[in-house]
Amino acid sequence: MKNTTYIDSIAEFKDKQATISGWLYNMRKGGKLRFLIVRDGTGTIQAVVSKTDVNEEVFALCDELTQESSIRVTGKVVADERAPSGFEMQVSHLELVSKADEYPISLKEHGTDFLMDNRHLWLRSSRQFAILRVRHEIIAACRAFFDDRGFTLVDAPIFTPNACEGTTTLFETEYFGSKAYLTQSGQLYQEAGALAFGKAYCFGPTFRAEKSKTRRHLTEFWMIEPEVAFCDLDGDMDLAEEFLEYVVQRVLKNKARELATLERDVTKLQNVKRPFPRISYDEAVAILKKENVEFQDGNDFGGTDETVISEKFDRPVMVHRYPSAIKAFYMKNDPTDFSKALCVDVLAPEGYGEIIGGGQREDDYDTLKNKILHHNLPLEAFEWYLDLRRYGSVPHAGFGLGIERTVTWLCGLSHVRETIPFPRMMHRLRP
Amino acid sequence: MKNTTYIDSIAEFKDKQATISGWLYNMRKGGKLRFLIVRDGTGTIQAVVSKTDVNEEVFALCDELTQESSIRVTGKVVADERAPSGFEMQVSHLELVSKADEYPISLKEHGTDFLMDNRHLWLRSSRQFAILRVRHEIIAACRAFFDDRGFTLVDAPIFTPNACEGTTTLFETEYFGSKAYLTQSGQLYQEAGALAFGKAYCFGPTFRAEKSKTRRHLTEFWMIEPEVAFCDLDGDMDLAEEFLEYVVQRVLKNKARELATLERDVTKLQNVKRPFPRISYDEAVAILKKENVEFQDGNDFGGTDETVISEKFDRPVMVHRYPSAIKAFYMKNDPTDFSKALCVDVLAPEGYGEIIGGGQREDDYDTLKNKILHHNLPLEAFEWYLDLRRYGSVPHAGFGLGIERTVTWLCGLSHVRETIPFPRMMHRLRP
Repeated sequence: MKNTTYIDSIAEFKDKQATISGWLYNMRKGGKLRFLIVRDGTGTIQAVVSKTDVNEEVFALCDELTQESSIRVTGKVVADERAPSGFEMQVSHLELVSKADEYPISLKEHGTDFLMDNRHLWLRSSRQFAILRVRHEIIAACRAFFDDRGFTLVDAPIFTPNACEGTTTLFETEYFGSKAYLTQSGQLYQEAGALAFGKAYCFGPTFRAEKSKTRRHLTEFWMIEPEVAFCDLDGDMDLAEEFLEYVVQRVLKNKARELATLERDVTKLQNVKRPFPRISYDEAVAILKKENVEFQDGNDFGGTDETVISEKFDRPVMVHRYPSAIKAFYMKNDPTDFSKALCVDVLAPEGYGEIIGGGQREDDYDTLKNKILHHNLPLEAFEWYLDLRRYGSVPHAGFGLGIERTVTWLCGLSHVRETIPFPRMMHRLRP
Repeated sequence: MKNTTYIDSIAEFKDKQATISGWLYNMRKGGKLRFLIVRDGTGTIQAVVSKTDVNEEVFALCDELTQESSIRVTGKVVADERAPSGFEMQVSHLELVSKADEYPISLKEHGTDFLMDNRHLWLRSSRQFAILRVRHEIIAACRAFFDDRGFTLVDAPIFTPNACEGTTTLFETEYFGSKAYLTQSGQLYQEAGALAFGKAYCFGPTFRAEKSKTRRHLTEFWMIEPEVAFCDLDGDMDLAEEFLEYVVQRVLKNKARELATLERDVTKLQNVKRPFPRISYDEAVAILKKENVEFQDGNDFGGTDETVISEKFDRPVMVHRYPSAIKAFYMKNDPTDFSKALCVDVLAPEGYGEIIGGGQREDDYDTLKNKILHHNLPLEAFEWYLDLRRYGSVPHAGFGLGIERTVTWLCGLSHVRETIPFPRMMHRLRP
């Protein structure tokens, strides 16, 4: 709208008249004063209506306003040290755009199911607002990191013709008479990208039909997956730690106010600086044994195991060389210990668990072909993938970072469901 | 890899030794010289091997190299005005990483089906490389435009519980005992975003199960969809033209080399500057009549109609106020002519057709509810959407830009299938 100002640029109007278009977030009354807390999607500001400054209709209107009514407020912008924005407004005129029905989400406590049913409105609350602004910053930081380093965006397809890592967690759809599956990862395609563009990444939604109701699982979540040609496991870990440091430090710098709203202890995030500790799977198992955690050597780590391991460190820990038996067919085996894969998982501190998984890919044609057969995968479906080893194979590596788990960690949340605007879970497909 | 240099930063090594890791794109022979064209995904460079400068094995190796073999080339970087990168390399050492089998895509002509079957390799060709680099720039520009203007990214869900605009073009999937549909547009969710964040956008894949095999259709395509609270149709058109100008001018500036590779006539793109012509649907129909195009007043425009209209202008043309009867239920009617919708389509020049569709949304509760009923849509499914009119409704507007059509236009292509790394069409689900 013309002649309207956003709260995040209100400083430009210090000691001048401005008009804000927004919604009534809250109101306090005091004698001849009404203190309207107005939000406009870029911030909140207190607009003070004094009975002596406005005409009677305007003052009466204040008492009619309901929470979330849409309004236009005009007045003088004055500095106020106590205000979050640094300013408040002395109202000279107030206009009602649309009076809200009784708003279902009051400023008191509600159950999560109720709030999730009203997710389209809950987004307006200050905590959800802060979380999604942090999410935006994380996503922008992820893209900027790779763009600035010469990576080419190679969007992976969502529809894939084959079930690569088991069909039980795949969403399936009819595709003009055949079947298509929704992608679980863009990695295989990204390997083609790396061999064409040297450094490539994809960033999009991925899907898992997991029947789990844990605090770490969504059926629809976003991943960024870089892949680099002429890169080994060490190079991959170098890239992962540089990337994570960049993302975390940028969020700390640009979203300090949002993190404060969320009451996040940022001292824990300030530590996220290179170098990160690098330990082998065997060393991680030794930590569990020492802590008397019941753990079967050779298994993958569970959530509790990851917490015990990560609590030994004040920053993300990179655990490399897991048993190849529990890792995907495309992982390259460690030439010095063939039972291990040249892979790495990055575990976030404070018990937030795995946020990155990656490693070096098998680049030898015969070895990869045998692995595909050994895993009982349909060779025909992987001919194109084998082509990447037939025509100019190179050592290459990459990883995937889950956006929602990263948001959970940086915001200090207990559940992944608040980290995406419209979460999709086993029992949640609405709104 | 350590000690390796990318071709796009080779200038830093002028008159110094460097090592490039890449692939043999082409080779010419001439007496005691071998001219290797090496690509590394960031560019190509000519590496000259002189029999007098290298040992016998290295020179013999040159003649064994096949197209797309992966190699490491070390030598002195010297300026060469004729070279695309401005430099060539005088080779002192050459190492074979992996010899490629006979490469299926030679530098001569191939049929499109064959190339699409080999899309994972075709990406390495110079034209495809250039197109996808332009795509990357367009996507980066889209995000930067909205990020710089204070929009918040509000990712729309891919899984939606209801079929909103007809079920015939929807992909359906089993969702833990119920049905989910793949999104065709994030707009309805983005309206919730705009009312929470003031200015919001989403950017992700969208899906249409259209049984059409035209040069403009993909089943999976990416859209960016901004939505602004307190915005009307005029403001929406202002935003759309500022946005398109920004994207086009940035691509012209940053991807001149790629556009040259594609032999794109950039003079046609230099015109894409504000203001764009704005004509009503009725005025557009008058153009068709004047050109003796057979057209039934009240219908939507077809591809040929759009071409005839857009050819009257040297930049994108904004056609507004279509008959509301042919537009979606959520469009606001024009208060001065209730038979028209406050919508806008932006048609690209040179016959590239519609690239943006948008408009002002119905913000009155009762009117919207009646429209939902009138369109025989299930009211229950839209209760959350109606909530946006119950609680603080405001005038709001937005639009969607199709990324692949924009890439088609800016690259000057005849078919949309080359504008996405792994296109999905009615008869194309592989690789």
